[in-house]
Amino acid sequence: MSEPLFPRVALLGIGLIGSSIAINLRDRGLAGEIAISTRSQATLARAEEIGLGTSYHTDAGEAVRGADLVILCVPVGACGPLAAQIAGDLAEGAIVTDVGSVKGSVVADMAPHLPPHVHFVPGHPIAGTEQSGPDAGFLELFENRWTILTPVPGTAEDATARLTALWEAMGARVETMTPEHHDLVLAIVSHVPHLIAYNIVGTAADLETVTQSEVIKFSASGFRDFTRIAASDPTMWRDIFLTNREAVLEMLSRFSEDLASLQRAIRWGDGDALFDLFTRTRAIRRSIVEAGQDTAEANFGRQPPRKDAWNEPGE
Amino acid sequence: MSEPLFPRVALLGIGLIGSSIAINLRDRGLAGEIAISTRSQATLARAEEIGLGTSYHTDAGEAVRGADLVILCVPVGACGPLAAQIAGDLAEGAIVTDVGSVKGSVVADMAPHLPPHVHFVPGHPIAGTEQSGPDAGFLELFENRWTILTPVPGTAEDATARLTALWEAMGARVETMTPEHHDLVLAIVSHVPHLIAYNIVGTAADLETVTQSEVIKFSASGFRDFTRIAASDPTMWRDIFLTNREAVLEMLSRFSEDLASLQRAIRWGDGDALFDLFTRTRAIRRSIVEAGQDTAEANFGRQPPRKDAWNEPGE
Repeated sequence: MSEPLFPRVALLGIGLIGSSIAINLRDRGLAGEIAISTRSQATLARAEEIGLGTSYHTDAGEAVRGADLVILCVPVGACGPLAAQIAGDLAEGAIVTDVGSVKGSVVADMAPHLPPHVHFVPGHPIAGTEQSGPDAGFLELFENRWTILTPVPGTAEDATARLTALWEAMGARVETMTPEHHDLVLAIVSHVPHLIAYNIVGTAADLETVTQSEVIKFSASGFRDFTRIAASDPTMWRDIFLTNREAVLEMLSRFSEDLASLQRAIRWGDGDALFDLFTRTRAIRRSIVEAGQDTAEANFGRQPPRKDAWNEPGE
Repeated sequence: MSEPLFPRVALLGIGLIGSSIAINLRDRGLAGEIAISTRSQATLARAEEIGLGTSYHTDAGEAVRGADLVILCVPVGACGPLAAQIAGDLAEGAIVTDVGSVKGSVVADMAPHLPPHVHFVPGHPIAGTEQSGPDAGFLELFENRWTILTPVPGTAEDATARLTALWEAMGARVETMTPEHHDLVLAIVSHVPHLIAYNIVGTAADLETVTQSEVIKFSASGFRDFTRIAASDPTMWRDIFLTNREAVLEMLSRFSEDLASLQRAIRWGDGDALFDLFTRTRAIRRSIVEAGQDTAEANFGRQPPRKDAWNEPGE
């Protein structure tokens, strides 16, 4: 095994992303020590049980002491307070990064607390599943996925380069952009799609003309795809919408405008308008598959459900 | 092989559903003859190439002659005219059914043309993929999926029972309800989800602040799920929205109302309202997985994309 990229990495927070990073550091020999810290005793114990790190700390400050890389893997709302908490323990020249889905607010919340002797390189791996917790992580999560780094003005190029090397070693492809642009991009490719998925599932649950049992039984016709997204971690997503408010509201108003015009096309029987849009959207799916960002298999290559899973949903 | 359920089945239209039915009839020995008819010469030739039937007809009337089961597998907008076209060739006591995603309009369009000596049992298999055409069909499509039958007043129970037996033999579970209720259920579990998927993909494509290349590269964060749905057959879906207009507009207005209140919660920073909804929706996902209507695997059990698929999307 060659020299690890980082002698000591501190992972603060050990959910889906944190545990996937830990598994990559461990199995690919990218770090000497892996110091793990998280608030919940139970979660920390579980991380130790499944051997995600080399040391486990309830005190985040203790975990970051002597670390040359510190990665915050907590909901974006928790980044500011956590930065304040660890500021005094950060080593000279340490690289501090995060994996938050919003960058503008994270930069605003964290930067003021960080001492001048560390390098702050905010980051966001565009990867995930609807599952969460230390058991959700896996080695391939970042494989062929993009990680966006949003270095702030004055960031040492060497720090960005070392962090880029780490993400690439974990299988990811790296792009850098400003925090503001990142937040606009994510609002449309992730935040608004999650919001409308949560919303349609809520709308369906509240109907009195259609039973919830019917919604569940007949979900295979499209609805079930939305429920997967709407099963994502509630705390993480609450924070995302609260912290990327401006960009989300902007994209949401465009979405609603477009939906209103589709609604009008349906009301007035304008089949051509519908057909044109439905043809245009098909091309975008093709591009995503060609770019290797999704499988070409029908239904995502879902396996036919097992008979033993049959189970009549209750009324 | 035991006696087939139907000596001669006519399949009018041979897309995803038609070809999947053909494969089931053939491989499970459910029909003596399988007469296939479709308007397009090329499609009919392809169906013959891959051996979906026992006879192939450009004239639908010829295909239905002597058939004791006739299944219309065409977009809902084409059902009325096709019923008129075959009416004179339908055999005494034949069962006539369809697979359309809308039932009220199909009943209204077809019933007037059908002679009194046939049994009309409208149907809808809640199954599909984003793919279409005679090559898209497969044996397991209906496995553990629900098929809804909407017999009209006066339908002979025996006819409904024979059709139920056929769907069950193809692996499906069968439920009957009125056409009106079917259309309400499908509006919320299928039609509105497809409409908002088409809509968000269109909104993303039209942005000037975010490039289409960025939308494609970073789609893995949620957007790509929507593009799969938005890649469904444009003709079929245009017809669905035009023919299930009332139910779709009703569900759409509820969706928009709910979305407006979410938008307000974001604007005013009401994190609790967001958290409550996001927790509620998670439970519905669980029920769908428990009901065997979707896989419990993360990301639908998608396989990590192949490296050889890597391909930089063009600006």
